Amino acid sequence: MSIVTILTDFGNNHEFVGVMKGVIYGIAPDARIVDFTHNIPRHDVREGAIAVWRAYPYFPQGTAHIFVVDPGVGTRRRPIAARISGQYFVGPDNGLLTPVIEDAERDGKPVEIVHLQNQKYWLEKVSRTFHGRDIFSPVGAHLASGASLADMGAFINDPVRLELSKAVKTKSGWEAHISVIDTFGNMTLDLPAAALNGRTDVRFRLKGVEVSGIVESYGHKAVGDLVAVVDSEDYLEIAVVNGSAKEKLNASVGDMVEVLLSE
Amino acid sequence: MSIVTILTDFGNNHEFVGVMKGVIYGIAPDARIVDFTHNIPRHDVREGAIAVWRAYPYFPQGTAHIFVVDPGVGTRRRPIAARISGQYFVGPDNGLLTPVIEDAERDGKPVEIVHLQNQKYWLEKVSRTFHGRDIFSPVGAHLASGASLADMGAFINDPVRLELSKAVKTKSGWEAHISVIDTFGNMTLDLPAAALNGRTDVRFRLKGVEVSGIVESYGHKAVGDLVAVVDSEDYLEIAVVNGSAKEKLNASVGDMVEVLLSE
Amino acid sequence: MSIVTILTDFGNNHEFVGVMKGVIYGIAPDARIVDFTHNIPRHDVREGAIAVWRAYPYFPQGTAHIFVVDPGVGTRRRPIAARISGQYFVGPDNGLLTPVIEDAERDGKPVEIVHLQNQKYWLEKVSRTFHGRDIFSPVGAHLASGASLADMGAFINDPVRLELSKAVKTKSGWEAHISVIDTFGNMTLDLPAAALNGRTDVRFRLKGVEVSGIVESYGHKAVGDLVAVVDSEDYLEIAVVNGSAKEKLNASVGDMVEVLLSE
Repeated sequence: MSIVTILTDFGNNHEFVGVMKGVIYGIAPDARIVDFTHNIPRHDVREGAIAVWRAYPYFPQGTAHIFVVDPGVGTRRRPIAARISGQYFVGPDNGLLTPVIEDAERDGKPVEIVHLQNQKYWLEKVSRTFHGRDIFSPVGAHLASGASLADMGAFINDPVRLELSKAVKTKSGWEAHISVIDTFGNMTLDLPAAALNGRTDVRFRLKGVEVSGIVESYGHKAVGDLVAVVDSEDYLEIAVVNGSAKEKLNASVGDMVEVLLSE
Repeated sequence: MSIVTILTDFGNNHEFVGVMKGVIYGIAPDARIVDFTHNIPRHDVREGAIAVWRAYPYFPQGTAHIFVVDPGVGTRRRPIAARISGQYFVGPDNGLLTPVIEDAERDGKPVEIVHLQNQKYWLEKVSRTFHGRDIFSPVGAHLASGASLADMGAFINDPVRLELSKAVKTKSGWEAHISVIDTFGNMTLDLPAAALNGRTDVRFRLKGVEVSGIVESYGHKAVGDLVAVVDSEDYLEIAVVNGSAKEKLNASVGDMVEVLLSE
Repeated sequence: MSIVTILTDFGNNHEFVGVMKGVIYGIAPDARIVDFTHNIPRHDVREGAIAVWRAYPYFPQGTAHIFVVDPGVGTRRRPIAARISGQYFVGPDNGLLTPVIEDAERDGKPVEIVHLQNQKYWLEKVSRTFHGRDIFSPVGAHLASGASLADMGAFINDPVRLELSKAVKTKSGWEAHISVIDTFGNMTLDLPAAALNGRTDVRFRLKGVEVSGIVESYGHKAVGDLVAVVDSEDYLEIAVVNGSAKEKLNASVGDMVEVLLSE
């Protein structure tokens, strides 16, 4: 079995993603195809990169993740594919791999990236405007089916990197930032819960409010309350019970959050 | 072959549902996964329960339906799984099963429900906020693959039940209610067409208007006309030809509809 | 392996498409199901027909495409299925096949269409309002599994045809029209790039503006510029770099575009 995932900024109103699946099944008839989302804000490489990064640990070895947020399609930006932690990642060289690479570097795992050049693995005819269909889908299907990454192009070690925010240690805690806001308006910080070493006597200051302590889950406070929880990927999260923290605080990705430990 | 369906209120803008599919394929590589919808209004257990209830008769024996509309995630609400009419249902114990249970009770079929407790069937690490990924997806994948319901926890007979509207017999017909409004604004009543015993000399009174008789399908009247038809699940339905009955009448789920037979 | 695609105007908020998939898997357990889109504007047969036409060349022989944009469901409009270019097309007889038929006629390929009448290939019970589930899904699943088209009904040669716009040759070039507008506001014309015979000294006049020449891809001009490119299906396209040509020009499908060659 092989799994291929797809993430794009194409929306759900047209046939584009379906066409990519036709190409994938033509090469890998036994593939299972998973959609992450096609509603990444247009050209928002960072949001797409974060979504793939949060999802990939839940996929089996050999999965190929196709990423098509590609403002530079048809220009000299490189098409790339990578093997990291036993999984494959395929898309334009525009930073999409940054958080996955950072995970590997932190854990001392190898990162193998090739500049896709071997047209044997592409559709015969490559358009100027839809490499998702003509390059990334066939390459992803071939990788998920066992093709050799090394045969697809030359290895590179200078992939484009995004500047991702990092929580910074301070005297009294951390300067963290909102890194993800989900459908419900829950706001994840760029600080793993593990950084607290189990302490729960913590305060969060953002947008003129303060949230004290960490609760086990949303349902442990009253509807409408601002709470801090540990999110499903073990990062700290600010939420409103049955409401939207994003709306309540008029917050955005990148906003600073002071995380303060008691003396 | 095994089929797993997923219904959530997660929307389509994030990777959450894709992650659930990664978990499912990791356990049941041959599964076919079907999305019902991920646009259930947030926390609207009733609407999700009705959608699954309308859909399940069209699925083969052994299908596992995963239901994640879960405002109580991480609290003491029970995770449950059930076998009813040869199919499986998995989700939080918040009423999701009510209409399926009522069908089984009416037909004298057994209803088996377990409180999920055997962590052998869960992901190794269970978060506080995403049981759809950590409990319900793996349990659904295991059930669709033939695992034993009885091995997953203790049987219970007190599942949470929703209060669902029921059409009430009156002297001249029924007091019915709008139970579902679809994408097109067509409005299904909580009265099966079979209740009319084949009579078509029927009038519907709602929101200050009256609709007479039942037509075979939308195209049998002029565009813009209010009509009554038998819907695709054999319930009575009020519609506007090529328009929206919901908008025309400013109607909502729960609104009362008098169904009147001639003397 | 068999592939079944689905295109509808049902939206993504309900269980309808999931129910169709349950029916398909019940008949063709090994099918791969691909969604094109379910957001075709309600009853917009033309937009659906164009989407399927743009997609089908990327699918393997034997694929069955199910098309459910069906304002006439339950009336005397015929349910049909066709074999064209080795693929199957299933839906109501309302013009859905027009562009695919025109391709076949241009290329001298056979077009076989049957009026679906053999209920052996349908669900046992056929509703008046959901032929997508009761007729088209089972027929598509049977065709993708190798059933005989000829056994499903009588051959016809008078399918309903849409009036599709055609670019018209003029003294100085063509009178073309906008035929498709995609998610990003890129606007495809009804003129194949091949018509230019490789010439790039071409000007496009529409909505009071003029675009000169053809660029290789969006990224070759500055953000916000109006450009002409060759789209991913080899038709001429007017776009705005990282913006929406549709919005910038307030354009609509059907709008005229003068395509002018230098003397």
